[in-house]
Amino acid sequence: MIEVEVKARSHPDTLQRIKALGAALSATEHHRDIYFNSPMHDFGQSDEALRIRIKDEGARLTYKGPKLDSETKSRKELTVKIDDPEAMKQILLSLGFAPSGEVVKRRIKYTLGEAVIAMDDVEGLGEFLEVEIAGGQDWSIQRRKVLDILAELGLDESIRKSYLELLLERRSEGKE
Amino acid sequence: MIEVEVKARSHPDTLQRIKALGAALSATEHHRDIYFNSPMHDFGQSDEALRIRIKDEGARLTYKGPKLDSETKSRKELTVKIDDPEAMKQILLSLGFAPSGEVVKRRIKYTLGEAVIAMDDVEGLGEFLEVEIAGGQDWSIQRRKVLDILAELGLDESIRKSYLELLLERRSEGKE
Repeated sequence: MIEVEVKARSHPDTLQRIKALGAALSATEHHRDIYFNSPMHDFGQSDEALRIRIKDEGARLTYKGPKLDSETKSRKELTVKIDDPEAMKQILLSLGFAPSGEVVKRRIKYTLGEAVIAMDDVEGLGEFLEVEIAGGQDWSIQRRKVLDILAELGLDESIRKSYLELLLERRSEGKE
Repeated sequence: MIEVEVKARSHPDTLQRIKALGAALSATEHHRDIYFNSPMHDFGQSDEALRIRIKDEGARLTYKGPKLDSETKSRKELTVKIDDPEAMKQILLSLGFAPSGEVVKRRIKYTLGEAVIAMDDVEGLGEFLEVEIAGGQDWSIQRRKVLDILAELGLDESIRKSYLELLLERRSEGKE
């Protein structure tokens, strides 16, 4: 499955604009994401990600492949539900993977047609917005659609860095 | 959790002896096990195992650490239930792990106190018996108990090789 996703810093009027587009509130979630790095090569360099996400209703293991273009966060994404995130963590540690950081956030999700708009409040980073269309076969069309939605919300940046990368950057800059 | 396990080739009277010990039939299972090797080091050499087991009622990912002694198959074992074995396989392939073989078997399980006795009919190998005690804190006591049960069944060998290793051996010897 190809996931096409853009991310931008939220503006004070962003929530109002999301509602004005006719997007419907679909869920509020709490995520604790534990990221792992490979013993083979640095995922920060290869642009891959391996993550255990713990949500209120359960946990998942997700692998994300390198991004496919320079404007969006489009990439291959593989996910399995797991019943025991601590055992999964111990398996990854036994296989040589090392924890690289944790991201904790509150996500409020809206749906707009086939798109999901997520308002994220990330611990240590602040508020962001992500627009995602998943499951399509033609990612160039998906890509156009998510960029259009971002423009309609009055946001013109597209942050390609992950929350983990942004957090690790802040940490290395001594901002926290 | 430490799993203490011994394995032996089944004899014609083994089933009768299991029943004579008072063991209770607990389940019949069908397993399809897909094993993976690490890109870091050969699990055949390091004595580790990484496996997706697909059973009738669901799938699990299991990591087994190196064996702890020379007489039994005692080792660290970590398991998570997964909802999608194909996605799990794709994640492992994306992380650089390579399939090393498949083992298909029918397992009939008996319980005898805290021990599980499994009669395995393995495709390409024949019938085996495994005695396992899991979950204890003192593996030297667990180890004594499983060896005692094996002796009571009139079996004195202890095969430390996995079914995968036995199958790969047969294959390399050109027996199939």
